[in-house]
Amino acid sequence: MMERANTDAAELVEIWRGPFHEGTHRGHVAIWHHDTGLVASWGDAEAVILPRSACKMIQALPLIESGAAREAGLSERQLALACASHQGAAVHRGMVEDWLGDLGLGEGALRCGCQWPNDIEERDRLIRAHDGPNQMHNNCSGKHSGFLTVAKHLNAGPEYLEIDHPVQVAVRTAFEEVTGEDSPGYGIDGCSAPNFATRLKAFAKALAAYAAAGAGGGVRDEAMVTLRTAMAAHPELVAGEGRACTRLMRAMGGRATIKTGAEAVFAAIIPERRMGVAVKIEDGGTRASEAVITQILIAMGVLDPEHPEAVAFAHGPIRNWRGIETGFIKVSDDLARWRP
Amino acid sequence: MMERANTDAAELVEIWRGPFHEGTHRGHVAIWHHDTGLVASWGDAEAVILPRSACKMIQALPLIESGAAREAGLSERQLALACASHQGAAVHRGMVEDWLGDLGLGEGALRCGCQWPNDIEERDRLIRAHDGPNQMHNNCSGKHSGFLTVAKHLNAGPEYLEIDHPVQVAVRTAFEEVTGEDSPGYGIDGCSAPNFATRLKAFAKALAAYAAAGAGGGVRDEAMVTLRTAMAAHPELVAGEGRACTRLMRAMGGRATIKTGAEAVFAAIIPERRMGVAVKIEDGGTRASEAVITQILIAMGVLDPEHPEAVAFAHGPIRNWRGIETGFIKVSDDLARWRP
Repeated sequence: MMERANTDAAELVEIWRGPFHEGTHRGHVAIWHHDTGLVASWGDAEAVILPRSACKMIQALPLIESGAAREAGLSERQLALACASHQGAAVHRGMVEDWLGDLGLGEGALRCGCQWPNDIEERDRLIRAHDGPNQMHNNCSGKHSGFLTVAKHLNAGPEYLEIDHPVQVAVRTAFEEVTGEDSPGYGIDGCSAPNFATRLKAFAKALAAYAAAGAGGGVRDEAMVTLRTAMAAHPELVAGEGRACTRLMRAMGGRATIKTGAEAVFAAIIPERRMGVAVKIEDGGTRASEAVITQILIAMGVLDPEHPEAVAFAHGPIRNWRGIETGFIKVSDDLARWRP
Repeated sequence: MMERANTDAAELVEIWRGPFHEGTHRGHVAIWHHDTGLVASWGDAEAVILPRSACKMIQALPLIESGAAREAGLSERQLALACASHQGAAVHRGMVEDWLGDLGLGEGALRCGCQWPNDIEERDRLIRAHDGPNQMHNNCSGKHSGFLTVAKHLNAGPEYLEIDHPVQVAVRTAFEEVTGEDSPGYGIDGCSAPNFATRLKAFAKALAAYAAAGAGGGVRDEAMVTLRTAMAAHPELVAGEGRACTRLMRAMGGRATIKTGAEAVFAAIIPERRMGVAVKIEDGGTRASEAVITQILIAMGVLDPEHPEAVAFAHGPIRNWRGIETGFIKVSDDLARWRP
């Protein structure tokens, strides 16, 4: 079994309640400049991580590069959804339903499993109808619709999650190319797709390539620009109301593309800086990965530190059931001082 | 502001996905024997913590010792509910409603705030009725009913959460007596009650006093026996279906009393060992505090290591939306080897 260096995790986020330092989150951060390499890190930039859903923009590369997206006539909105961990709201479910219909498929072609939507309106609709969720509600159903689009284009079989299926072979190839390393292996994700491991700094390097990609740079560059632009243009499709990706991308007005992943991974692509950022909190605490990425986006100059969303995620109050402010979250002083 | 020693937190729990060590939880554990003192610890037993809901059996001492419980004719079930972080199920809400009625009060006398119930059946009932939760659904409403019972007995005012209200003065006195230390202060809990801080080992010492308490030992001993027995006898009232406290106390058949608290605190009272256990995971990850307390209960000999609940919490599989086993949780080798 592969062991990663946990002992090097840095203290990144503090939780305070009244006068007491109640909690601590530790982890790893790597910031990569496309031209000059690693420009900053906390914890262990060599740590091997599973990037989980934070690498969906990489898993979507074959969708564009194979020509499948063009053949299927996918819209920018569909490409954003292919990179999403969505809330299972009516808009997300509806888009997946239409997409599968266009492929001549139904919900049964998905292999992501049923998941109760996090979207309250859609959840309540199902409960009132004494109904349950289907696979289209799964937060990864857009990614899976993308996989099915590639599978159809390649005339490949229906079991598109198998590790040697042409879709996953193409994903692994793209993943290893953009990280610049052979992946040491994979884990099975929440949605049953293989999720390839990489070193944190290699993931940041891949994200920096997305940041630096420009028109006229070839098929890969064009695919990277297309995906990062689609995500930044449709924050509500990449996650949903109330979620960090949606709220922070809206707050930045398209200046950066960000994506969260399970177990507290967070990725950021900052084109104007030609930089990529990869965050992994070792304990899987999402509040901490959100605080860290927010602070870094502020430092990068792409997120106004006074914006209510910036305040809420980076050093916001913690409130209780009566709305009383009982404490706050803050990033470490060391992280707060950093500037690119 | 008070800083606690985070750097001494020990690695206690590992999260694995496929062949990858995906996550780590660190924290502090203190195990106290009533006769011989600290018998084992991981991390920093001197760490100052907010015990949160894990100290509800201490916050309930004035309810019994003042004579309020006797005057109100409280049942053993009500005493268990006074120490609960319940799910807001119909049974919990109904008991609180009746209790408040017996006091001549209504839901409006509570100061805990409204909280959506975690109980699915009750939640769905509210959603289908286009209704919302009230304060009786708050997981702490049993504790607050206890506070109101004490307030009535003392003929004190309605703002029973204020720090200088006779109820909270009595709670603080009891808390400092059983921990054997002056509390360095308090934070405001999720339910708006003051939550007094203490060192982890002092909390374990208090829990050991509950474990060693016997009939004929005076008012405090009797109160401790009454509360630990009420909780162990009614696991479904202390938490609810699906929750660790309920499942593990059922699995132990009354041999130990356990109680979780927010931000990954866990307390255990083991009468046959005359020991108390206090756990605090520094990152607030509940899955980790549950794994640690389960492993210690197994080591203590009060929980069958083969029991499905023991397996589920201490080293259970992690499954995804399709039920596929994607990884597992495990306690550190060092913790797994420990025997009392």
